[in-house]
This record gives sequence, C-alpha cells and structure tokens, in this order.
Amino acid sequence: MPELFHVLTIAEALDRLLAHVAPLGRTEHVPLLEALDRVTAEELRAPGDLPDFQRSTMDGFAVRAADTYGASEGLPAYLTVCGEVPMGRASGLQVRPGDAARVHTGGMLPDGADAVVMVENTQALDDRMIEVVKPVAVGENVIPIGEDVHSGEMLFPRGHWLRPQDLGGLAGVGITMVRVVTRPRVAILATGDEVVPADAEPAPGQVRDINTYTVAALTRRSGSEPLPAGIAPDDIAALRRMASAELAEADVLIISAGSSVSTRDMTAQVIGELGQPGVLVHGVSIHPGKPTILAVADGKPVFGLPGNPVSTMIAFDLFVAPTLLRLLGCEQSKEGHTVQARLARNVASISGREDFVPVRLDTRDGVLYADPVFGKSNLIYTMAHADALLRVPLDLAGLYANQTVTVRLF
Amino acid sequence: MPELFHVLTIAEALDRLLAHVAPLGRTEHVPLLEALDRVTAEELRAPGDLPDFQRSTMDGFAVRAADTYGASEGLPAYLTVCGEVPMGRASGLQVRPGDAARVHTGGMLPDGADAVVMVENTQALDDRMIEVVKPVAVGENVIPIGEDVHSGEMLFPRGHWLRPQDLGGLAGVGITMVRVVTRPRVAILATGDEVVPADAEPAPGQVRDINTYTVAALTRRSGSEPLPAGIAPDDIAALRRMASAELAEADVLIISAGSSVSTRDMTAQVIGELGQPGVLVHGVSIHPGKPTILAVADGKPVFGLPGNPVSTMIAFDLFVAPTLLRLLGCEQSKEGHTVQARLARNVASISGREDFVPVRLDTRDGVLYADPVFGKSNLIYTMAHADALLRVPLDLAGLYANQTVTVRLF
Repeated sequence: MPELFHVLTIAEALDRLLAHVAPLGRTEHVPLLEALDRVTAEELRAPGDLPDFQRSTMDGFAVRAADTYGASEGLPAYLTVCGEVPMGRASGLQVRPGDAARVHTGGMLPDGADAVVMVENTQALDDRMIEVVKPVAVGENVIPIGEDVHSGEMLFPRGHWLRPQDLGGLAGVGITMVRVVTRPRVAILATGDEVVPADAEPAPGQVRDINTYTVAALTRRSGSEPLPAGIAPDDIAALRRMASAELAEADVLIISAGSSVSTRDMTAQVIGELGQPGVLVHGVSIHPGKPTILAVADGKPVFGLPGNPVSTMIAFDLFVAPTLLRLLGCEQSKEGHTVQARLARNVASISGREDFVPVRLDTRDGVLYADPVFGKSNLIYTMAHADALLRVPLDLAGLYANQTVTVRLF
Repeated sequence: MPELFHVLTIAEALDRLLAHVAPLGRTEHVPLLEALDRVTAEELRAPGDLPDFQRSTMDGFAVRAADTYGASEGLPAYLTVCGEVPMGRASGLQVRPGDAARVHTGGMLPDGADAVVMVENTQALDDRMIEVVKPVAVGENVIPIGEDVHSGEMLFPRGHWLRPQDLGGLAGVGITMVRVVTRPRVAILATGDEVVPADAEPAPGQVRDINTYTVAALTRRSGSEPLPAGIAPDDIAALRRMASAELAEADVLIISAGSSVSTRDMTAQVIGELGQPGVLVHGVSIHPGKPTILAVADGKPVFGLPGNPVSTMIAFDLFVAPTLLRLLGCEQSKEGHTVQARLARNVASISGREDFVPVRLDTRDGVLYADPVFGKSNLIYTMAHADALLRVPLDLAGLYANQTVTVRLF
C-alpha cells in the first residue's frame, strides 16, 4: 500500500504551493457601497485635497491670530464682528485686522483669517463687538487644506482588503466606483460512495455531505465565490471526469478527499493528472490534517482536503485561505483572526508535528479562557462547539494550563 | 447655550438604552448555504443520531475485540476473513467469533463486530486468513452511534450567530433550511448644509458625505441591512420630516448629527420628538465621541452619532453594534474582535473619560505592535490608516510604551 510520500512542515508546504500561484487578473468595477470586503485591483490615489478648504474645528470666531496675542481675562482683545460664515458656502467675507467672523464647526475660514477662537473664550459685548480672553496661534482650531489627504497621495495600494473606514475614505475624495479583483471561483467537490447530499435521507451506512457546507462558507469568508459541485463516487473515471469539468469552470478546485487510504490515493492520482506541475505536496506534519494534498494544474490551485470535518477546516485555514488571498493579490496579514487567551487545561502533543486543538472561548472573572474541546476530528460538532483553534508548535510536547496562548478564530 | 445635560460612562449609557430594546420578531427561512453570518430564530435540535450507525475510523478489519485479547507479534490471533464491508451500504455480513470483515475508514460496522483492528496491525496469511498482532478493546477505532450528536440534543440555541462549522453541523443532521432572524433595517441619515453626496463635486465650503459609507459598512458587519437615506439640510422641519419618514420604514434610525453645537441640539430635539421615551442619553464620557445621542422612539432605537468620522465609528462600535445584536436576539460576546499587542509609544489620556486611540498593527520580529495613529478625529484617514482602536480606561492617565494592550479591530 503506497504511503504518503513526503511529509513537510506547514511553511514548507505552503511555500511550495504558492511558488506556483499568481494573482488572477480579472477585475470589475463596483459601487462603493458594494465594495466592503473586496480587494482593490489598482492603486488608488487622491484626486484632490481633503479638505480642499480651511475648515474650523470649533464653533467660534475666525480671526487673525496676531490680533489675539496677549489677550487674557484681565486684558481681553476687542474685535469687531464682520459677519457670519454660512455652512456649506464660501462666505465672501474678508477678515481684516481687528475683525472676527462668526463660524461654525466645519465651516470655511474666510479670507484673511488664520485661526479660530472657541466661542467659550469670547464674550459678546454687543451685536458688533466681542472680547477675546485667550490668545490663539496661527492655525489653531483649523484643519488646513489637505490635512486628511493631499492631492495625488496614495490612499490604498493595489491588493488592499477594503474595510468600513476605507469606504469612508474613498467617499471623502469622491471615489464612488472602485475597481476590485473579481472573486476567485472555487469549485467544491465532495467524494465518497458513502456520502449523500445533505437534504437526502441516508440509507444504512451513508452519511450526509458536511464538508461542502463548511468549505463553501470558509470560501466566502476568504473573499471568494464557492461553487458546490456535488458528490463524486469512489470511481476513478467518474472522479476524473467531474474534477476536470469543474476545474475548467473555476479558478480553484477543492476535493474533499475521502478518508480511506485507497480513496485518498485515487484522489491524489486524479489530481496529479489534471495538469502541470501536478501534486506538489502530499502530506503535512500536522494533526489532524496530515493527508492534505496541494497541487497546481496548469496554473490553477487544486486541493485534496482530508475528509474529516475538523481536518478539512484546519487544512483550509492553513493552505486554501492564503492561496485565495494570493489569487486576490492581497498580501495583508490576518492578525485579525487571532486572539490571546489563558489555557484552561494541559494539552499533550506529539513533538515533530503541529497539533491543532479546537478550543471554546469563555470569559470568567474578566479573563478569557481557552477550553480545549477534546473531540475526534471526524466529528463536526467538535468544531461547532469550538470558537477557535490552538496550535501546538512542532517542537513542543504540549502546553500547560494557565499558559497564555494565541488561538486562531473560526 | 444649552450644554450636554448629562455625561454617562459607556456601560451606564448602553444599559440605559438596551433597557428599552427587545429582539425583533421577524424571521425568514433560508437555504443552509445562505445562512452564514445569520442568526438562528429558533432553537435547533438534532432530528436524529449522528452518526446513526457505528463507523470505522480506520482502514482495517472489523472484529470481536475478545478475539484479539493477548495477541502479540510473537503470539498473533488468527482470524478468518468473512468478507468486505462496501462503503455506503450495510454489508449484510455477520462477524462471528473468529471472524474479521475488511472495512474502510467511514465504513459501517457489520453485525457482531465491536472493534476495528488497523490494517497496520495485521498480516495477511492468504485470501482467507489474517494474523492480528495487537489487541483492540471494545469500541476501539469505532465511532459509536450518536457520538457526534444524539437525537434530540440541542445543536444551537435561538440567537446563535452561524459560522462555517455550524453550517457543517446542520448539514450533517439534514437541516438544509434554517429559520433565521430577518436582518434589522437601519436607516442612515446624514445631516449638514455643508455635506454633499459623495459622487457630487463639492463647491467651496462643501464636503462629501463620508459617514453614510462607514456606517452602512459597519451595519452590514453587524448582520443588518443599511438603508442610506441621503442628506438632510440644517433645517428643523426638513430634518423632522426626513427622520420620521425614514424611521417609519426602518427598525433603527442613525442620524449623523452634524458637528456644531446648534446642529447637534437640533438633532437632539428632532430625535426627542420622534416617539416615546425619546432621548435617553445625550453625552457619554468618551473621547472622541462625547456628543453621542441614544434614544428610543416607540420601541425603535434612534442614534445621533457625532459628525466626525472617527467618533462615528467609535460610537457605532460601542452603542449601535450591541443594539443591533440585541435586535437580532444574539447575546454572543464579540471576543473575536479584539487582539492583544504591544504598545509602540506612550499614550497620554485624561482621567475621568475613556479615550480611544486609533492604532495600526504591525508585526516586527514576530511581535505584534500597536502603533498609535495620532490624527484628529475629524479626519477619515486617521481611521483608514488604522487597523484597530485602543481603549484607555476611565481611571488611567495614560498607557506606556511596551505595555501589552488589548485593541479592538475595525
């Protein structure tokens, strides 16, 4: 019986795969409100200054700062109110020495003014005169032109994953249509004579398809489009036919590879025949998830994921998600997906492989605890009862209770 | 000039609001593949056992465990191969004392068998006979009926936010349509004579609408449906008309409240007139974000968010997001949105209020650093250059460089 021919570390395996994967070239133009969680297909630069006029940050009076120098409660500066700046319009006012123009937060500084005195630091003497009791410096309480962004400044590089604040930033400079990378199309093929569609009633010995659903959802989370492709029987001709038909229509093919050695070998053989260079990695030093197959067929990544639900999710996170980001042209880190917690119990591990343990997160007395969920990797509810995965490094024989650990959220 | 009448802590303010907010009752039935990031509208229980037959976890032989007791390399147990279990079918085989049935991973245990010997621990003597060189216990290498979930067991409570693994879990038990809570409809109204639509060319003194975009995107992230409602002028009759028309069509109204004291007061007045009990909170001890207005109008939450882009995002995260979760009936924590990092610089703060400082996350020498982005809160790129927010607690005058801090991701 052929055994897995080579077992690599996670980083070795991923490097070997990504060496063959280039960003997809397809792009599309979407309205800004639809651009959340899309990836920019081009560098975006500011078409103009933001703001493009000097704005007051306070309710008060636009003045010449020099007119206020030395002003105090005891010796106020007396200024003449020369008018009021309307919101959203240039005022036409001219602030001359000794003048003050009433201005609201966000209003445009009139000509001649170079600072704003907060209304709290003034006292109205009559309709025309105010006292200023505290000096302002030039530029005080004023947003200068271009302080947010300057015309021509790079706003976002190509390959940037757009977040809520980024949409706001683009709106601010009038970019309301964005060129984004088209979502990679990910065909998802389940295998196994024992697997039936989730909406079917399994006969004795049959189980429902689980992995299509988890993989489709993880694909969505990775900014890509899942294309569920059904279930292939344990028949090499049928698997070959379905796999190549699906790959022709997609950018990526994921085969849920079945769990017996013979079906895994069949999956590896079919994957190897799909195109060049074929299978790059067959087996990774992780548990669960060891029998992961990483391949490239004529430029398209192909994955043979272990059949177990937990292994599938771990292998997706480690190998498929970074590949989808590469296809999107996005090299951003995924810091956001980790969190630190205190380990609630000892966790044993085998040195020489990376162990992944599902954990449930729970806050007790204000401390975030990671409680290991000790379930078999062939049970989907092991993951459904978990919130995150704990990774036990290659060279450790385990981790201890109360140790602070970093876990990866699912 | 009327000042903010009462300044509360974050928790006081939120409690005061949530005391008036109940989950929405509306639900809908969606296909499982569309149920990612939706919230369950009812408790889900397992309609049957998973698995509903005993499954092998190994490639090997189904046996009676007692037949292997005492087996070793030196003194193997000899068993007769009585057949092979096909994948996905009941075998009809009967494993009698002294028998072994060939079985694959995931295959169904035949009658009479109570354990599986791994193929690695066997040796074929001929087509009919094997040696077993290591004993197995009853149940070894077998998933018993219901080990994943038992019939009738609660899978997910009502109000559960569905993740990829949860969809897999539901598929496993054949739940392919899910009753979920209808997304709360959130009307978003910008205000200000100086604000023009993002796709318009601003005249001098005008700025483009930013907050509609950030608030809409944050609303989506919170599992709700944004309804951008345009821009109201600084005119109380117009604002009142637009606000009540929008609220009638929505479950929540968010008004980007303008930044000058007079427009804020106008917003508070209009919000107070929309329904009972009206304004509950006007002013929170946070910076930026102090002039936040929290209100309820005849059962519907209404927010007056500060006009500054940074304040808007902070106030959304602190007050709107938890309210939307309450409307969804979801009481899950949002642990997932925080991460620990080392503070790169000292951060000063004013005791007696909670300060929020945008930070950029950056990994240097394997350590995750939080670099404060010191920009004014009226600059959207302060947030666009940031990945997270650092919260400086009420009673601290600041935080020190190299301290480990928890930051909230944006």
